[in-house]
Amino acid sequence: MSRSVAVIGGGAIGLSIAWRAAQAGWSVTVHDPAPASGASWVAGGMLAPLSEGWPGEDAVLQVGAASLARWPDFGAELETLSGETLFTSHGSLTVALDAADAADLRTVAEWIAGQGYELELLSRAQIRAAQPSLAPNIRLALLAATESAVDNRALIAALRSACTRSGVEFVAEAVTDPAAVAADQVVVSAGTASARLWPGLPVRPVKGEILRLHRRPGVAPAPTMTIRGSVHGRPVYLVPRGDGLVVGATQHESGEDTQVTVAGVRDLIADAQTLMPSIGEYELHECAAGLRPMSPDNLPIIGRVSDRVVLATGHGRNGVLLTPLTADAVVAELDGAPLAEAKSASPERFTFNDE
Amino acid sequence: MSRSVAVIGGGAIGLSIAWRAAQAGWSVTVHDPAPASGASWVAGGMLAPLSEGWPGEDAVLQVGAASLARWPDFGAELETLSGETLFTSHGSLTVALDAADAADLRTVAEWIAGQGYELELLSRAQIRAAQPSLAPNIRLALLAATESAVDNRALIAALRSACTRSGVEFVAEAVTDPAAVAADQVVVSAGTASARLWPGLPVRPVKGEILRLHRRPGVAPAPTMTIRGSVHGRPVYLVPRGDGLVVGATQHESGEDTQVTVAGVRDLIADAQTLMPSIGEYELHECAAGLRPMSPDNLPIIGRVSDRVVLATGHGRNGVLLTPLTADAVVAELDGAPLAEAKSASPERFTFNDE
Repeated sequence: MSRSVAVIGGGAIGLSIAWRAAQAGWSVTVHDPAPASGASWVAGGMLAPLSEGWPGEDAVLQVGAASLARWPDFGAELETLSGETLFTSHGSLTVALDAADAADLRTVAEWIAGQGYELELLSRAQIRAAQPSLAPNIRLALLAATESAVDNRALIAALRSACTRSGVEFVAEAVTDPAAVAADQVVVSAGTASARLWPGLPVRPVKGEILRLHRRPGVAPAPTMTIRGSVHGRPVYLVPRGDGLVVGATQHESGEDTQVTVAGVRDLIADAQTLMPSIGEYELHECAAGLRPMSPDNLPIIGRVSDRVVLATGHGRNGVLLTPLTADAVVAELDGAPLAEAKSASPERFTFNDE
Repeated sequence: MSRSVAVIGGGAIGLSIAWRAAQAGWSVTVHDPAPASGASWVAGGMLAPLSEGWPGEDAVLQVGAASLARWPDFGAELETLSGETLFTSHGSLTVALDAADAADLRTVAEWIAGQGYELELLSRAQIRAAQPSLAPNIRLALLAATESAVDNRALIAALRSACTRSGVEFVAEAVTDPAAVAADQVVVSAGTASARLWPGLPVRPVKGEILRLHRRPGVAPAPTMTIRGSVHGRPVYLVPRGDGLVVGATQHESGEDTQVTVAGVRDLIADAQTLMPSIGEYELHECAAGLRPMSPDNLPIIGRVSDRVVLATGHGRNGVLLTPLTADAVVAELDGAPLAEAKSASPERFTFNDE
């Protein structure tokens, strides 16, 4: 008789765990009153652990890079199974508008090279040639050729399709207590709601607003790579989609509020236009907000906390990036053989496990 | 046997004509594949013919004022019939941010007084006392106590309810040729689509984008009156709704495009915030665009163009304001006794009737 696992939470993380667990022979149920309606639905889908690297954040880089390395095979398998197109761009460009930004880019490039990865600095002329829609006052850019972007909504659709084909069953009900779920093992992968399911779990919601833009006829094409930058100290990114761009993202510590604010949209438009002046002529197709499940140290929380419960949450801004690594790590944990690459994400680093 | 009339177009204008015609004994059908989905759905709902007056535009003022005078009874009858609350504010305040704006307000006040209507100029201190959420650098304002605002979506719901109770029948099909409709009389009230139904009709689409904001907990209350102003030469208005504000409106001559643009939203937010600084904290609940049916002289086109066809279109920015007058004028025209107050809106002023 096959062993059973209940996965609580049907976002990208939960669905990928469910799919991989079913492939590994588990009998899987996913419990979510509204699968794919949370942070996964609003995500930008950047896979950018290298260009977001920073000296000292070794563990964050190592976990992100380990998941990035899994994405080509993980994505190709899902694309074949589902018929969805997941990858919407290849390469990311982090841009500098001033001397301080440029110095930061050089710091990142040097540190990342020391960690064994390669990033390339592009001059103003190289940037203009590569991405002519960007603002001419961008003075330096960091090119990460291996950092692609994934269409988050296609990912969700592909994962749901893969789950169904693998025999995963969906239960459209909210779970309030993991102990009440009838299964041999329970995975808590409910994003910010995970904190209500496991007392003391240090995951807090950080609201993020995004815009989804569609290109209109006669308007300059969107960049072909993910563009990242900082404007007035606010991080902003433009992530290509087949029909346009996702612009993100604000950051507010404001509880479980998912309303889109006037000021959030105002700032996103202004900052995106600073990077790409022609963006004003795009269609503003959608504004949305989601809740990132943030951990105290910006590493996810993946691992066993009891004989029966495994956590997979706290992915913060990087849920889509960390999806393949998290799925592998949780299935390894279910099988009793934790994955070495996810060791820094273990819940053992927090004291709530002892309380 | 009752005479029959087919009303082509089920926006605020068409529905009000249908209702009033049914009350007058006509057998009425409304033809629209998607009633209430056009400009009526996106409208701000200001009733502001006095404060939008300008020396020389006597006919526009006269038509607008004649319709404004009908609104209290028209609205009360609809509210009683339908249970909807139509009026969301009473009074409008047109504000001046600089000396040129202030001079314009004095010009309007003087001219309107000469036409027999009363407007009041408010000082900076009076404005602060009356509407504390407005920007402190507003130096002068024009108060029109009789200019209310109507919830456009409640109006549509009320008119549909009133039509149904009066026996109006709805045909959810598009009409491409008035001659093909089986009815004794045909009213063309299809907004910008009217130009396709009557060759040569000088009505063109002018796109307008609006924002619908909802107040969030802890945020300063919205103004209690309609606020109108001009920022960088762009007109902007804030119209109270029960739960927030409608902010409008951009103006683009761009064919039949109803996509919301990034630049349109950017400008509306910036201009609204100039009038009301706390607006950034509101929820951006909806962005939408509609097509105003503009005539060459900013007067509507209401009247008979053949033994069988009566036009009611070209209402431009003032469709909600002009609804009661238009309904009365069309029913009078159907009965063979044109309304004197709508004479300046007659299609006879254009040469397309002779072609």
